[in-house]
Amino acid sequence: MTSFVGPELTNPRAERVKAVRALSGRSMRQRTGRYLVEGPQAVREVVRFASVHELYVTAAAADRYSDVISDAHERGLPVHLASDEVVAAMSPDAQGLVAVANVSSATLDDVLASRPTLVAILASVRDPGNAGAVIRAADAAGADAVVLTLESVDVHNPKTIRATAGSLFHLPVVTGIALDTVTDALRAAGLAVLAADGSGAHDLDDLLDVAGPAGAGDRSAAPDLAAPTAWVFGNEAWGLPAHELELADAVVRVPIRGQAESLNLATAAAVCLYASARAQR
Amino acid sequence: MTSFVGPELTNPRAERVKAVRALSGRSMRQRTGRYLVEGPQAVREVVRFASVHELYVTAAAADRYSDVISDAHERGLPVHLASDEVVAAMSPDAQGLVAVANVSSATLDDVLASRPTLVAILASVRDPGNAGAVIRAADAAGADAVVLTLESVDVHNPKTIRATAGSLFHLPVVTGIALDTVTDALRAAGLAVLAADGSGAHDLDDLLDVAGPAGAGDRSAAPDLAAPTAWVFGNEAWGLPAHELELADAVVRVPIRGQAESLNLATAAAVCLYASARAQR
Repeated sequence: MTSFVGPELTNPRAERVKAVRALSGRSMRQRTGRYLVEGPQAVREVVRFASVHELYVTAAAADRYSDVISDAHERGLPVHLASDEVVAAMSPDAQGLVAVANVSSATLDDVLASRPTLVAILASVRDPGNAGAVIRAADAAGADAVVLTLESVDVHNPKTIRATAGSLFHLPVVTGIALDTVTDALRAAGLAVLAADGSGAHDLDDLLDVAGPAGAGDRSAAPDLAAPTAWVFGNEAWGLPAHELELADAVVRVPIRGQAESLNLATAAAVCLYASARAQR
Repeated sequence: MTSFVGPELTNPRAERVKAVRALSGRSMRQRTGRYLVEGPQAVREVVRFASVHELYVTAAAADRYSDVISDAHERGLPVHLASDEVVAAMSPDAQGLVAVANVSSATLDDVLASRPTLVAILASVRDPGNAGAVIRAADAAGADAVVLTLESVDVHNPKTIRATAGSLFHLPVVTGIALDTVTDALRAAGLAVLAADGSGAHDLDDLLDVAGPAGAGDRSAAPDLAAPTAWVFGNEAWGLPAHELELADAVVRVPIRGQAESLNLATAAAVCLYASARAQR
């Protein structure tokens, strides 16, 4: 049975509505430790997988997405009924349903404790859509975690959340950490650190050819894709500068067969992560 | 030596400026058979690889991108000097340099005549960024052509051109054709038609395991990724409906190892096209 907290909210100019809407901006997220999740697909995933503060739903959406509302009830979350105007004022992309969620980023120690075998590191990735697409690809490839370095986009940006298609809530995403801190820690935990860059000495297809037990343990040889691996992906415009490439054990290039200069960030990351996942089967 | 056609253009409200700017809209592209190419990276590629009508450049950009201007001179293209205001009025993304290019789409017969071994087909792909990213990935993977079906986005949309990062000019891109016409023609030319879809009976990794001569020629068995292949990729929101899946010889799924429901269109296409390219080496 659907039940709501308090009476229906009908004033789109209420302070409460403005406060929810303001979570689409970084400064309000930082002040409150909360963020906005818009639309049925993302709200469904955040309710199932992450820490949620409260939901706002229109009568029509409560009916249409009753599975989401009953998941929320099961988890004891407050669900507020609101008019179409109120929900639209909270987010133009709500389709009748928004959640206010609690920022609860994983830590690097959490990730290390899980004994990861595949990690994606985004170094200074600035575009919300690119970052989101890589998080989604990492989830699909079965990565254990994603790390975004200090200079990267805020993953709780609504555009990033949308691009992850729910994957932001599926695997640990660590943020706000310096690249050398991450690479040192993951290397100490036994992962090979591979930078993806067009300048790489190693061709990804060649590494796939020799991946497996025969190549393992020999640090002087080509990296073994079947071994635990952390991939480093650089900024969408300038890639990885020399001082970042030096933090990797090896630099690997995705082979370019046509006239293209490079792949875009998310497609390159997907090809690399799927190559590792294939080698690690 | 840099030389320009006529005097410097200085009036951003001139009819000529408006006419160039209007090419960012579909209707003017259809009326004139021309399209707008913005910014040094894309203009460099269109001058080298495609049919260009004329260029507009600021004095500063002519200096900075003198390689592009001398390429244009070599090809006998008219280069107009224009003020910063004029070029900015033609396109806010020009960075001092725009080209007016001639639409000269390849035909399916051109593609067939080239005896292609790897083709990407986009069925009803609507998002300009997604379509552009797939064209870029197809180029990088060494595909021979890309085909967009009737209901797809206009590839001469400025957002698509930007997302291709020049790849639109590197390989034949056929547009405005019904999906069954393309699949029939490519199958008749000896290509296997594989649809990429999460419902697929075949796992891409399993197909890579068995790709090669041993599997070839046996139509009842799993498709051979080493054989000439046309991949069909569906709309970013609803994928491939049943009547489109039926046009394929086999439906192949990219393995999903985490909690993600799917990959986004461009990353899925990149993983599939790179798998074919690897198997065809």
